[in-house]
Amino acid sequence: MSDAAHQQPAAEDGSLGDAASHFTTEGGTPAGPGRYVNVDALTPVEFLPGLGFRPVLGQKAMTNFVSFEPGAVAPRHVHEEEQIVVVIEGEFTFDLDGDVRVMRKGDVAVVPSWVPHGAWTTDTHCLEIDVFSPPRSSLLKLAEAQAAESAADAAGEE
Amino acid sequence: MSDAAHQQPAAEDGSLGDAASHFTTEGGTPAGPGRYVNVDALTPVEFLPGLGFRPVLGQKAMTNFVSFEPGAVAPRHVHEEEQIVVVIEGEFTFDLDGDVRVMRKGDVAVVPSWVPHGAWTTDTHCLEIDVFSPPRSSLLKLAEAQAAESAADAAGEE
Repeated sequence: MSDAAHQQPAAEDGSLGDAASHFTTEGGTPAGPGRYVNVDALTPVEFLPGLGFRPVLGQKAMTNFVSFEPGAVAPRHVHEEEQIVVVIEGEFTFDLDGDVRVMRKGDVAVVPSWVPHGAWTTDTHCLEIDVFSPPRSSLLKLAEAQAAESAADAAGEE
Repeated sequence: MSDAAHQQPAAEDGSLGDAASHFTTEGGTPAGPGRYVNVDALTPVEFLPGLGFRPVLGQKAMTNFVSFEPGAVAPRHVHEEEQIVVVIEGEFTFDLDGDVRVMRKGDVAVVPSWVPHGAWTTDTHCLEIDVFSPPRSSLLKLAEAQAAESAADAAGEE
């Protein structure tokens, strides 16, 4: 990530009706400052052998970057938070309440509240994103610790 | 995505305390069926020239897979929904309330409610995921139409 010298070009004219409402500039009061995070700079926490977690915390959602080494297992489990799983590298096998499939880049699984699910690799690596809404309660302490680490790193660069 | 013949291995013993609570199997009633989506099978909708949207809708969150061709612009805008931006291919320039940076794979931006932001490419392609919580209202009709298309494709394959 680096600063850019570019200026944002003017918005296109002739917007679609949907685009005009999508890109409105009228609204309310910001809920807080935005922030940038470089996930590669976070230290993964190994929740189980070969299963590394790097959560990035919002207020209403969390994105947890999860790496599976070959032979790693996220045991079948349930939770109240909704989850959307997005594979971005490699592959793993996903068990969505008994519907077991190999997921690769471009594959997404939508896991509503309390739907049982699990995942594992055999001889492949996998990098995937777990989106949680609301943020997964069991990861809040970890996410807050990593956010503090990330903020300290950013301060150290200034 | 394909069916897998593997069976899930037994969960490891000796779990970390955090892992034990994270992977609990006790809970409530599922909020609905889970589903798989192959994003590459969705037809992108071009909201503005060179800007393709493929939303995947949950109940509490939405992941919108956004492709920027070179020279595409998402004009600076605001909205109530929280947004987390994850770049997965290529690069684009992101304006987070005036903090303008080039984002590449591994870079994330957390955009709280009503914080102004925009993005654009110059001579590069970019594929990124916009996570919205709650789901972005201006994309609901599009997401529902694509979900119906995806379900119809899945039925056609059976």
